[in-house]
Amino acid sequence: MTAEFVTPAAGGGSPLPGKPLPYVLEAGEGERAHLFDQLFTVLLSGDETDGQFGVFTMEAPRGQAIPVHSHADVHEIFFVLDGKVRVVVEDGDGGRVDKVLTTGDFGYVPAGHRHTFRVESHRARTLGVNTGGFERFFAAAGERTSSTMPPAQPVVPSPEQLGDAARRYRNEFHFDAHLID
Amino acid sequence: MTAEFVTPAAGGGSPLPGKPLPYVLEAGEGERAHLFDQLFTVLLSGDETDGQFGVFTMEAPRGQAIPVHSHADVHEIFFVLDGKVRVVVEDGDGGRVDKVLTTGDFGYVPAGHRHTFRVESHRARTLGVNTGGFERFFAAAGERTSSTMPPAQPVVPSPEQLGDAARRYRNEFHFDAHLID
Repeated sequence: MTAEFVTPAAGGGSPLPGKPLPYVLEAGEGERAHLFDQLFTVLLSGDETDGQFGVFTMEAPRGQAIPVHSHADVHEIFFVLDGKVRVVVEDGDGGRVDKVLTTGDFGYVPAGHRHTFRVESHRARTLGVNTGGFERFFAAAGERTSSTMPPAQPVVPSPEQLGDAARRYRNEFHFDAHLID
Repeated sequence: MTAEFVTPAAGGGSPLPGKPLPYVLEAGEGERAHLFDQLFTVLLSGDETDGQFGVFTMEAPRGQAIPVHSHADVHEIFFVLDGKVRVVVEDGDGGRVDKVLTTGDFGYVPAGHRHTFRVESHRARTLGVNTGGFERFFAAAGERTSSTMPPAQPVVPSPEQLGDAARRYRNEFHFDAHLID
């Protein structure tokens, strides 16, 4: 259902094979992108999994909550590799799951549920898994980078770029919603 | 208002909701099973993802390579959380990907490729992602447990149990193949 927004990596520069072939990556290798104060590294895309799932890591310093958003077609997990991340998800029944996750903890955000997160430690790293294709939203909204670290200065996309990426990956922002005060 | 956190039931009940609802798990929570010398913990199943993907962790001591196997319909990743794991995958073209993965490293095994792995450190922990449904193979081949650790003595299934689980999850063993000497 989502293969349509699976976007092959821009020519060259990606260590991913682009089709279902075996490969390995050393820690830090992958398609890296900066968005806001975060470093995203895509390890696996829908291109390698027949659109089933993608895998990425995220690293960021303590900061603000990201804008509340939802993606109608995309399931997503948070697995904390290091640090503390507060995840808030609307449960669809008027309530919320609201939890500070730390190393080894897991959170699940099913398709269509509004959610946000905030790093609550000096630094944090998470591993994400999403319905295949969505993993390249971060590069589309931000910028590809060869850096191995989160950006020294936040990478803030123009409203046009963010809007284009959101439409392309069907990621809906709810700027009037605040799940974390 | 905050929804009740999903809490594992005593005595082997599952903390997973069984449908696409938000939930969180603390490190170690999940559907735990012992198979051979390994502890598997399922964090997410195909029931929560419309069959797209499942997520599990594996923890085991240094040991023997697991039997070479393949699953024609199931893509699978290895992400090393801690320790060293040697992963060997046939590339389908007469060659192999053969790498000792350590913390933060990643390996991909596409559907149909014969593969094996061996823990090569005192202990190792990995996170796996697979095409939805396969994550319960480990419990079917081994046994559910409330233990938080790898088994004190290996849990060796009977040929009948292993064969039944393999057929049910379309996991093909190649007992005559040796990818690790």
